Order: sequence, then structure tokens, then C-alpha cells
Amino acid sequence: MTAESGSRAQRIDRYVGQYAERAKGMVASEIRALFAVAARPEIVSLAGGTPYVAALPLDAVGSMVSELVSSQGTQALQYCTAQGDVGLRERICGIMALERIAAHPDDVIVTVGSQQALDLLARIFIDPGDVVLAEAPSYVGALGAFAAYQADVVHVPMDDDGLVPEALSEAITRVAASGKQMKFLYTVPNFHNPAGVTLSAPRRAEVLSICQRAGLLVVEDNPYGLLGFEGEPMRALRADDADGVVYLGTFSKTFAAGVRVGWAAAPPAIRDKLVLAAESAVLCHSSFAQLTVREYLATQPWREQIKDFRELYRERRDATLDALERLMPAGCRWTNPAGGFYIWLRMPDGIDAKAMLPRAISARVAYVPGTGFYADGSGSQFARLCYAFPPPDRIREGVRRLASVVEGEISLRSDFARLWAISTKSSYSPAASLPNARFHCAREHACETN
Amino acid sequence: MTAESGSRAQRIDRYVGQYAERAKGMVASEIRALFAVAARPEIVSLAGGTPYVAALPLDAVGSMVSELVSSQGTQALQYCTAQGDVGLRERICGIMALERIAAHPDDVIVTVGSQQALDLLARIFIDPGDVVLAEAPSYVGALGAFAAYQADVVHVPMDDDGLVPEALSEAITRVAASGKQMKFLYTVPNFHNPAGVTLSAPRRAEVLSICQRAGLLVVEDNPYGLLGFEGEPMRALRADDADGVVYLGTFSKTFAAGVRVGWAAAPPAIRDKLVLAAESAVLCHSSFAQLTVREYLATQPWREQIKDFRELYRERRDATLDALERLMPAGCRWTNPAGGFYIWLRMPDGIDAKAMLPRAISARVAYVPGTGFYADGSGSQFARLCYAFPPPDRIREGVRRLASVVEGEISLRSDFARLWAISTKSSYSPAASLPNARFHCAREHACETN
Repeated sequence: MTAESGSRAQRIDRYVGQYAERAKGMVASEIRALFAVAARPEIVSLAGGTPYVAALPLDAVGSMVSELVSSQGTQALQYCTAQGDVGLRERICGIMALERIAAHPDDVIVTVGSQQALDLLARIFIDPGDVVLAEAPSYVGALGAFAAYQADVVHVPMDDDGLVPEALSEAITRVAASGKQMKFLYTVPNFHNPAGVTLSAPRRAEVLSICQRAGLLVVEDNPYGLLGFEGEPMRALRADDADGVVYLGTFSKTFAAGVRVGWAAAPPAIRDKLVLAAESAVLCHSSFAQLTVREYLATQPWREQIKDFRELYRERRDATLDALERLMPAGCRWTNPAGGFYIWLRMPDGIDAKAMLPRAISARVAYVPGTGFYADGSGSQFARLCYAFPPPDRIREGVRRLASVVEGEISLRSDFARLWAISTKSSYSPAASLPNARFHCAREHACETN
Repeated sequence: MTAESGSRAQRIDRYVGQYAERAKGMVASEIRALFAVAARPEIVSLAGGTPYVAALPLDAVGSMVSELVSSQGTQALQYCTAQGDVGLRERICGIMALERIAAHPDDVIVTVGSQQALDLLARIFIDPGDVVLAEAPSYVGALGAFAAYQADVVHVPMDDDGLVPEALSEAITRVAASGKQMKFLYTVPNFHNPAGVTLSAPRRAEVLSICQRAGLLVVEDNPYGLLGFEGEPMRALRADDADGVVYLGTFSKTFAAGVRVGWAAAPPAIRDKLVLAAESAVLCHSSFAQLTVREYLATQPWREQIKDFRELYRERRDATLDALERLMPAGCRWTNPAGGFYIWLRMPDGIDAKAMLPRAISARVAYVPGTGFYADGSGSQFARLCYAFPPPDRIREGVRRLASVVEGEISLRSDFARLWAISTKSSYSPAASLPNARFHCAREHACETN
């Protein structure tokens, strides 16, 4: 073996010619690499979408889990069905009812976070080259799952009221004319990740109607729907079209990300395929995690806990908006989320948020550059700020650092433009380097379609 | 919406033309359907590979988890990296050392059971039509994962000493000549599922050498390696070729199936791809489940627990072998496992274990027909018996019922043959209906290649 393994050791990857076609596009996400750096304590991270689980009553949850294992351990530590625990699925139906969804436990499959539901949907629907419609920008994890099955993502513009129906119609017409197979519309209607906007009620009806006419399935991804800062939860798309919408939910933000319990509610035929795909992917999800969530919902004051989370996140949003307003230089624009975790920040013309990131990290503040949220890598003028994890004081300090970095960039560009003008006797236009972002902010603190 | 949804309701599946090519082969596994029936209390189930988790110290595990959530809840309830908790990965390396594997925590990725590792390996390696070599018979969950990526599984015969090296060489030559891409050999070397046999030490070296010469990756799936009934654990294949073997392990049988914590130890380039694929599939596994296992290994007497499991399962294996010996009619043959969960039972010539199953269920005993363990659906003369879950008395009762069903089948066939001979004046040969099984038992209580 020695001679062979010796020669093998000299190759970087002896399997390089063996991977599947789909694996060739698998490259490390810049965002994930960033998270490792952003986790350093000296850095104020506005990067990862990390819920503030320290707000949970840890002792009470611990006692509850102890009781679960002692009294129901032979179920909690055993295999489960691929569809998931029926008691949990009943509770999930109760939660979806808050958004006016009438679902039966049979309609639900429990997944390893909603990321697994995205993966399974892509698995059962997407052949290489098939089109998925998605907002511009769109959730990076969904784009990753679609890319893993070699989907062609077509972005549809948003504005302050979410996805623009006319733009959706146009995109459908355009893709249909191209002859490509269009498999579904992927949308995050509430407190969008990363854009922070919410699809208005009238537009929900319009979007459904457009998709119904086109025979296009809607995938409604709703991790943040119960984390609105004002009024009642919005009526879900799924509430008005049980046959045309697959709804994705998760306990990652309303309870604990670490249990990795999400779900999909789907029309029966799709649910059947999802269950089969899940069985092939993981056999079944963890009973231990599922029953922990089931018992949490059965024995703990989860509605009050969600209310506490809402208060906490509202305070942090307010701190962020206030600091942005006070500190950010002219030319910056941002969205004003009514719930959820995210603000979408547009840099002044000529400032590239991706190129600026190393300087921000040096200044001990982190964000996610916009490029990860576009399948085509555009969006470099944007940054996603997540206010969910740092306390308000840290947020203010983080925004102060960020503002200072942006000011430094502006000043650098201005100096460079002056020197450039002197040396070439021509005027320098920073806008010339502006990437062709499909989604941008055109008026102060608000977003509209381009 | 009413008119549209009315017309839609008349269709069974409006998305039937929309699924991906890979989803067309997704059909409900007969085995899974069987499990629902087999779970009824009046039935002695020798079907599912269900570990006896009631043997765990549930109160102690409950207290441990309570302490984990109280003191480390902000980590246990939070997102983790896609590669998995580093403390757990360190512990996993300690466990693999029991089989003489020298691995670094960086080599390891934590997965949602080893099923997810199988799925991720298939995802990164298999293009439609690529060949995977696998024992005949082979683990049904692995066959399912490979089928989901449209692999072409080529079975390689086994005998009492496991995979037959000559047959492996021949299969490699044959596939290479066919021009198909051959991606890896999938093998369960210890206490094989379903065959119950173990790859002998000399053959381990031979199999490795054959695969090295062919440049063929080995996937060593080892859920039962620490559950041997005699002596020390066998030396793993991975111990002798870290660059040519991906090793899969799991805590499902040594601790608890319900945590769904497994792992893969892989060469660096493959590990990188697995981590990226896992991120796309589920973002990360449950921190809660991972840290529960980590704390279990750190604070509980896990080696003694494995010893207890070994004793328990040995007693059940002995009860099964003894009952088979005493009760089964002539013509039945079975393997004699030195560990693990399974006995592979060959029915007398002419008896179809799959066709017989409904009668066995009526007689209140369940097993898994052999057909699920062959990619081509052969193996109908075989049944997998799992002795891990029922107590010895129930096992004896189950085997008694099974023997009686087989006797009934033999008698029925004998009557039918006599009547057939009378009516046609010709002799009836039950063997004519024997499926062309690639793996069968040719001498009493032992298996050899055909």
C-alpha cells in the first residue's frame, strides 16, 4: 500500500474526476466563511440570522426535557416515521391556524429545519436547468438548495410592499416563452430575508391569482410570520389556496434554532413525495428533537414567549433604525421592517459592500454583503443587517463603526476622484462602477422596484 | 378561485407532470408500509431494525439533558456549523480508535444518522446511471439513497466470510468493460444488515487491495461494529486506508436512534464536499441532539452501556437461533451472526417469503422479505429476522408462529403439487418458481456465494 498511498498523497484530490455533475457547483459560501470571523467577541456581528435563544427560560426547558426523557424516553430516543410525530403535527396545525391556515396533521411533514423542506422540494421538482422564480434579493439558503439541484433562478423585483405582481407576470411570460420548465415561485412574504419588506394583503391575492392562472406552484417560506411588531399575523397565502401552495414553517425563531425542527404543509401528492424523499435523505428526523418541541408547546407558555421575542426584537430593530438615522452618511438607504430580523441597507453609489467588508471587519463590525442573495452574484451595493442577536448598546456601537467605515470609503473615493480628475483632466463617475442590481432603494428609507 | 379549485379537485395530482426525473422512481417502500402493521402489540415483530432503547438509564439521561439545557442552553438551542460540534467530533474520534482508526476531528462530519451520510455521498458522487457496487443482499436504506440519485447498483456475492474478493474483482472488471462510471463500493463489513455475516480479517486486506488497484473508493458503513458478541471489535477498513475509505458510524445502536446522530470520516476533499452538501440539505444538524450525545459520552458510563447492549442482544440472538433450530421445518437455512441485529433466513425451495408475508401477519408474526435488499427485486426466498427488540420469550413465540406459517406453506405446496400431478399427469417442480437470487444459502445455517 505504501507506494500507492505515497503517490496518492501528492495529489490534492484523487477523486476530483469522480464527483457528480451537481457537485461541481458546490463551493464554500463566503457568508459561512464570514460567520466564523464574525463570531469573535470583539466584533459586533450584524451578519448571521441568529435568534436570541438566551431569552428562553432555560431551566424550565431543561426540566421539561428531563421529564420527557424519564417518562417517554422509549419513544423520544427511538426511531420515528419519516413524516414525523403525529402529536407534533397536530400542534403545528394549531400554530398555522394563527395565520388562518386550515390544515390537517396528515398534510404536514416535519423536517430538519425548513432548510430540509427546501432541499426536498428542490429534489422532487427540479431537473437541471428548470426555472425557479424567486424574489430579488432572496434567502441565501434557498438559493443554495436550488443551485444544488442545478436550478436556474429567475429573480423577480420587489418594492416596499414585497414582490411586484406585474413583474411576476412578466417573468412568467418571459420564462414560458423561453420554453424552459418553470417549477415554482419561491417567496418569503413576511419580513423578508434579507429585504425586510412584507407582501401586502392586496398583493397576496394578486400573486395567488397570477400563479393559479399560470398553473405555477407557490412555495411560501414563513420563518418570521409570528414575529411581527404590530397587530395580528398576516393571513398566509396557504390560507387561500391549499392546493396551490406549499407552506414552510420552523421553530428556529419562535422557539430554538438548535432543535432543527421545521415543517412543510403540502397538497397530498406533494406531501407523499416529500415523505419518500425525506426517508431517503435521513430515514426520519430526531424523535428527541420533535418530542421536545411537542412538549414545549404542550407544557410551556409558548405564546407569551413569542410575545417576549417580539418585544425584544422590536427594541433591537428600533435601536438599529435610530442609529442608522443618526449616524449613517448621506446616500445610504435602508428598509424599515415591521417584524423579523433584517434590514436591507443600500450603500451610497460607488460603494461596494462586498469589497468594503474586510475594512468593516477590521473596524470590528460584520454584515452580510448583498451578493449572496442573488443567484447571479449581483447586489454588491447592498448589505444585510441582522439586529436579532446583539443587545441594543452593541447594535448602536456596531452601527457607529459601520457608519465610520462607510464614511471612510466615501472620503477615499472622493479623494481618488479628485486625484483622478487632476491626473486625467476628466471627471470621475463613481456610478459607473455600480453593479446592475435588480433590487434597489430609490427613496430615503424605502425600497422600490427598479 | 372556486371554479378553478373545483376543477382541480377532480384531478388526483395536478403536479404529476412537474416532478423531477429522479422523483419518478420514488415509490413507497413495502418495508415501511409493513412497519406500521408490525407495530401492533399483538404482532411479534422480527421486522424493523429497532434498538432496545428501554435498556438505557432514562432517568440519568434525563437529568443529564436537563443540566445541559440549563447550563449550556444558549449553545444547545442555537445553530451549529454544518460540520458539527467539534467537542462531539473529538469524542467520535475516540470511539473510532476502538476499531484502530486514527482520525482527527477535522476528518469528521456529523450527520442526521448515517442515512444522511449515505444521501450526501450519493449526492456528491452519483450522476444518473453511475454504478455503485454493493453486497448481495444490501442494506435497504442505502439502496434507497442510491436509487434516489438514479445509481445503477451492481450486487457482489457474499458468503459466510462476507464479500467474496474474487467476485468483487470480477464485478469491477465487468463494469469497467461496460464503460460505465463506477463510483464506490458500499459495504457493511460487521454483522451485515441483512445477512448477519462479517467480513473476515484476511478478506479486509484483499478487498482494500482490489479497490486500491482499481482506484475505487470504499464506503464502509459500520452501525454495529461495537456490538460484537465475542472478543474485541474488528479492525476497520478505514484503519488501513484513510485516503481510500469513507467510514460511516452512528449512535443509533450504541446509544439512541432518536437523537439521529451519525457521522462520516472522510478524506479531506470528500469531507469538504460533504460539508457543503450538508449545508445545502439541512444547514446544520441539531445542536441539541449533538450536545446531548457529547454530554452522554462525557458524563455517562457509555462503555458499560454498550456492554449491556451486547449482553442483551446476544441473549436474544441465542433465543432466536435456538428456536429456529428447534422449530423451523426442514429446508430452512439461516446465518449465525456474531453480533449486531440480524439473521438472514432462507425459506425452503418454492416458498416465497414476500408472498407468504400476509399469512405471517395473520399469524401475528412479522419479518422483512428479502426483496427489499436487492436493487433488482430478487431475493424473494429470503427473510430478514431482527432479534433486537422483542424479549426472548416473545422471540420464541414469534419463531413458533413463523415456523407454523412456513409449515403451512410447505403443506399447501405439497397438496397443490399432488393435485397438479393428478390433473396434468405431470410432476410439479416448486423450484421452477424460485427467483434467481444472487445470494443464497447452500448448506445448513451457513451462506455461500452462488
